[in-house]
Amino acid sequence: MQLNLHQTHHEIGDFEALFKYLTTTFSSGNQKGLHVFPELFLTGYPLQDLVLQKTFIDDYQAFLADLSLWASSQFKSAEKTALLMGGLAYQFDNYGLPTIIENVMYLVEPGKKIKPIYAKQLLPNYDLYEEKKYFTAGTNTGIFQFENHIIGLLICEDMWFSHLHELDPVEQLKDHLEKENLHCDLVVNISASPYHLGKFDQRVNRALEISRYLEAPFLYVNRVAAEDEILFDGKSFVVDGKNVVVQAKSFQADFLSLALPKFIGPKTGSLNSSANSWGNLFSTRLSSDTRVLLPLKDAECAEIIDALLMGISDYSLKNKITKYTIALSGGMDSSLVLALLKILKDRKVTPMEIEAVFMPGFFSSSLSYDLSYDFCRNIGVKLTSMPIKFIHSAIRTGYRDCFHTEMKGLADENIQSRLRGALIYARSNEANSMVLNTSNKSEIAVGYSTIYGDSVGALSVLGDLYKSEVFELAQYINRNYNEMIPPEIISRPPSAELRENQEDAQSLPAYDLLDPILEAMLSMRFSPQDLIKKGHNKDQVLKVFQLLVRSEYKRRQFCPIIKIKAKSFGFGYRVPISKKLL
Amino acid sequence: MQLNLHQTHHEIGDFEALFKYLTTTFSSGNQKGLHVFPELFLTGYPLQDLVLQKTFIDDYQAFLADLSLWASSQFKSAEKTALLMGGLAYQFDNYGLPTIIENVMYLVEPGKKIKPIYAKQLLPNYDLYEEKKYFTAGTNTGIFQFENHIIGLLICEDMWFSHLHELDPVEQLKDHLEKENLHCDLVVNISASPYHLGKFDQRVNRALEISRYLEAPFLYVNRVAAEDEILFDGKSFVVDGKNVVVQAKSFQADFLSLALPKFIGPKTGSLNSSANSWGNLFSTRLSSDTRVLLPLKDAECAEIIDALLMGISDYSLKNKITKYTIALSGGMDSSLVLALLKILKDRKVTPMEIEAVFMPGFFSSSLSYDLSYDFCRNIGVKLTSMPIKFIHSAIRTGYRDCFHTEMKGLADENIQSRLRGALIYARSNEANSMVLNTSNKSEIAVGYSTIYGDSVGALSVLGDLYKSEVFELAQYINRNYNEMIPPEIISRPPSAELRENQEDAQSLPAYDLLDPILEAMLSMRFSPQDLIKKGHNKDQVLKVFQLLVRSEYKRRQFCPIIKIKAKSFGFGYRVPISKKLL
Repeated sequence: MQLNLHQTHHEIGDFEALFKYLTTTFSSGNQKGLHVFPELFLTGYPLQDLVLQKTFIDDYQAFLADLSLWASSQFKSAEKTALLMGGLAYQFDNYGLPTIIENVMYLVEPGKKIKPIYAKQLLPNYDLYEEKKYFTAGTNTGIFQFENHIIGLLICEDMWFSHLHELDPVEQLKDHLEKENLHCDLVVNISASPYHLGKFDQRVNRALEISRYLEAPFLYVNRVAAEDEILFDGKSFVVDGKNVVVQAKSFQADFLSLALPKFIGPKTGSLNSSANSWGNLFSTRLSSDTRVLLPLKDAECAEIIDALLMGISDYSLKNKITKYTIALSGGMDSSLVLALLKILKDRKVTPMEIEAVFMPGFFSSSLSYDLSYDFCRNIGVKLTSMPIKFIHSAIRTGYRDCFHTEMKGLADENIQSRLRGALIYARSNEANSMVLNTSNKSEIAVGYSTIYGDSVGALSVLGDLYKSEVFELAQYINRNYNEMIPPEIISRPPSAELRENQEDAQSLPAYDLLDPILEAMLSMRFSPQDLIKKGHNKDQVLKVFQLLVRSEYKRRQFCPIIKIKAKSFGFGYRVPISKKLL
Repeated sequence: MQLNLHQTHHEIGDFEALFKYLTTTFSSGNQKGLHVFPELFLTGYPLQDLVLQKTFIDDYQAFLADLSLWASSQFKSAEKTALLMGGLAYQFDNYGLPTIIENVMYLVEPGKKIKPIYAKQLLPNYDLYEEKKYFTAGTNTGIFQFENHIIGLLICEDMWFSHLHELDPVEQLKDHLEKENLHCDLVVNISASPYHLGKFDQRVNRALEISRYLEAPFLYVNRVAAEDEILFDGKSFVVDGKNVVVQAKSFQADFLSLALPKFIGPKTGSLNSSANSWGNLFSTRLSSDTRVLLPLKDAECAEIIDALLMGISDYSLKNKITKYTIALSGGMDSSLVLALLKILKDRKVTPMEIEAVFMPGFFSSSLSYDLSYDFCRNIGVKLTSMPIKFIHSAIRTGYRDCFHTEMKGLADENIQSRLRGALIYARSNEANSMVLNTSNKSEIAVGYSTIYGDSVGALSVLGDLYKSEVFELAQYINRNYNEMIPPEIISRPPSAELRENQEDAQSLPAYDLLDPILEAMLSMRFSPQDLIKKGHNKDQVLKVFQLLVRSEYKRRQFCPIIKIKAKSFGFGYRVPISKKLL
């Protein structure tokens, strides 16, 4: 039996492109074997409320009808062919209202109408997942027979049993096979599994475990796409119980074809389900002593760069953006974003125009300009300097004349940041370009940014990386991309340059102290008391906690943040703004 | 049996205040009878991720221990007393990780430890609800015996069976009573039921229905609070099968005490569950022909004002805000927000300082200033005029000098709006005041606002009211509050005044056409095709749909919107930014 893994790249709801992909791919009539597509291939994922919107439902039903017609009448194959693909199956009441919506696996065969053959049983509903909001869980074991082979079927979360779930589809599959006295020749899992750093290894380990338990090769086809902040990394693979037999590319479409491999063991008698559950990783890691925040390895830096570039390019592609305007400050964060854009441009995925704007104020050092200038010259990006001093003066004067008081302190700091926000957006309006946000996770966590100022942007590139990780990533880029960023940009002390001799260290603990505290609070859910017990400085811990809690209102108005870590700000992080400071 | 309804008002996680309320209220020793408190009284609601945060869990467990100690040793009562109150019940594994979290009803009795006696069975997980993300559903019928009375127990959603749910706790209660050959003397429902216009009548109707079905009075205690955008209106009540016997105040704390009323019928043999289900109302009303958008009645206007004022005052109280800065444009929306603040100030709920700022640009009419001046003089609010012309000129000049092109078109329009945003926030920084957002639902829906410009603010007051409703509300206020707003503000054609002779009608369909189209798309989930079939103008419908779909990115960065309608932008509305235009 030939196995074909279709790691396709399509936009949510682009039914025309999907139909074209299928009819083109299967027009030649010699596509023998089993073809596997990702979870919700037919719709895209995540869909959120689109699932319930009439426009979407009507268009999708029409697409399914076209597909079924094509499969039953036009789809011809000389040899035995079967397609397994993810999609939604709607049931409607007499008024046309959907009563049941399932996340299913469709079977498409030449000469037959398409039909759902398995419905996802475990619906993830934690962190960024909300599938129980929209879908009804299936209740039947997934078994499919093709060319005398028995194939076990799973959809994404089905392979990840945890104590948060009511049932274990893998155990259920095992029981079913034993009861029917069958042996499984292959396990297929179709996924739309959001990316985070380190997740691929977890997937492979779990696939190997299930493979050994069911004594069958395990085939995993994953979605590839960036949907606003959520990335799907692809990296589809097949394991034979011992090794990864094939592995698809990450962060891009790919297609793999291979003969069904033999299971070559070893066999195991049980599954270590609790250790592998997403639920454990996400929702309840309250007192774990595992890794808090380690330096990024080179391979991780390379992976993060690929991830961020896909995040930027997919968002751009879908929203028809080809131009970018970056506000360069002479600091590390904005420089890193510009460096990433330059790397993306050099990869020639899509045509791109990049421009940088430097907006010096009263407190900007000449070094900031010189470094920005050197950097842009290095990488061949046009830099425009647009001073804000005169406008800032005009605002100070106007304010004093009207309110009879000097604009000072925080007001005078923030107005510079907001003025830059307004100006960069004026340029964006004029140039029809996208503004990328350059804040990092440390700043976003403690609210060390000006709302409507440096926090502006359509998409946040670095918002899931702590400042210390931004530092490591910038160094990695310099090591591997010809010292692209002037080293002094990376080594100089961080400063917002909004008042005389300002440095981040005046307002915040040093980042090498701050970042582990934040990570322990956010990802591990440690309380301040836990951290103080572990030996962290009490005043620092309490200050960081207070800053974190009090800056919730800023995060509520923040742009989508490309997700890199298991625990990120955004959809998977929901906290009320108003609450008693705990 | 004496019934006591405690419609209390506490901040999320304010365990100290809760403990004080209980110990003070029950210190006299003569509080006989049954005392009922709202759902999740002991924690507040909605808690979102706080439920999983160690700090919250530790503090809550300590509070429960204190409460239990108080109840078992210090709480004395001369007569029979029992307290029923909502809270969370955690179960932990050996590592201290929560494995099961239930939304329960605690029983507190003098001389005994507190204990959960019923766990919520229906966990709402649609629209803004996400209880399945955090809680495990209970599986047992709620029955409690007190003073020889049989009391049926329900928590909020338990009374609202729908096809989205797996079981019907009311039918289950009925079955249980019949099997045990018991008769129910009272049904108690504790709720934290988010407010929307018209919801109170739905609650009472459903309560009467259940009362008649179980042949017992029905007692409903609801939470009262504003939690960021979500309001809880209180309005706790008791029905006797025929009438509302008592009803608590709306949007404020209240306490009611009465003897158990007799059930006075009529009896009914069945429940009309489907018509009354929230699920139907929220998630699938795809092709209904019911009310799209009717003019607001006077009573509805009065209710909306109470709701908005609670939204503002509770947010202010919890975030320690006593000053407000409003950017007044001479248009209806900002004027209405200022009028509401003035009404709130006159109610003397909390001390308030209000100031208004008028920021005229090149295209502001002198009428706009005159009207704003008259309005502020009418209501005794200080108005400061801070012209932006000179600053705007400075920006135009700076831009031309740097980019060698004139700032024009959209860029030149938006910069004025963003400059005003920056200036009003400078004032807010200086005065330590809150900026309220003044956008309406029509603008937010079609993206007719400047991101980081007129869309700024900590809280949106009018964001759940269409422009035509803002108009009705302004007229209502003038009829009932001494013609507070100069009538010409209400009658003049809406304009952003960002270019010569600009009017909203140049960019958008007239609001009386636009608003019903929007409401049909948002609340009814009609497709453009449905609306065209119903006789709406095709070009207008398609244009509105496109504007709606394309402005998703602006809504993602919008502030919390005080929720007034069943379907609102915010937590209950989740749509991807990037998608094929459907």
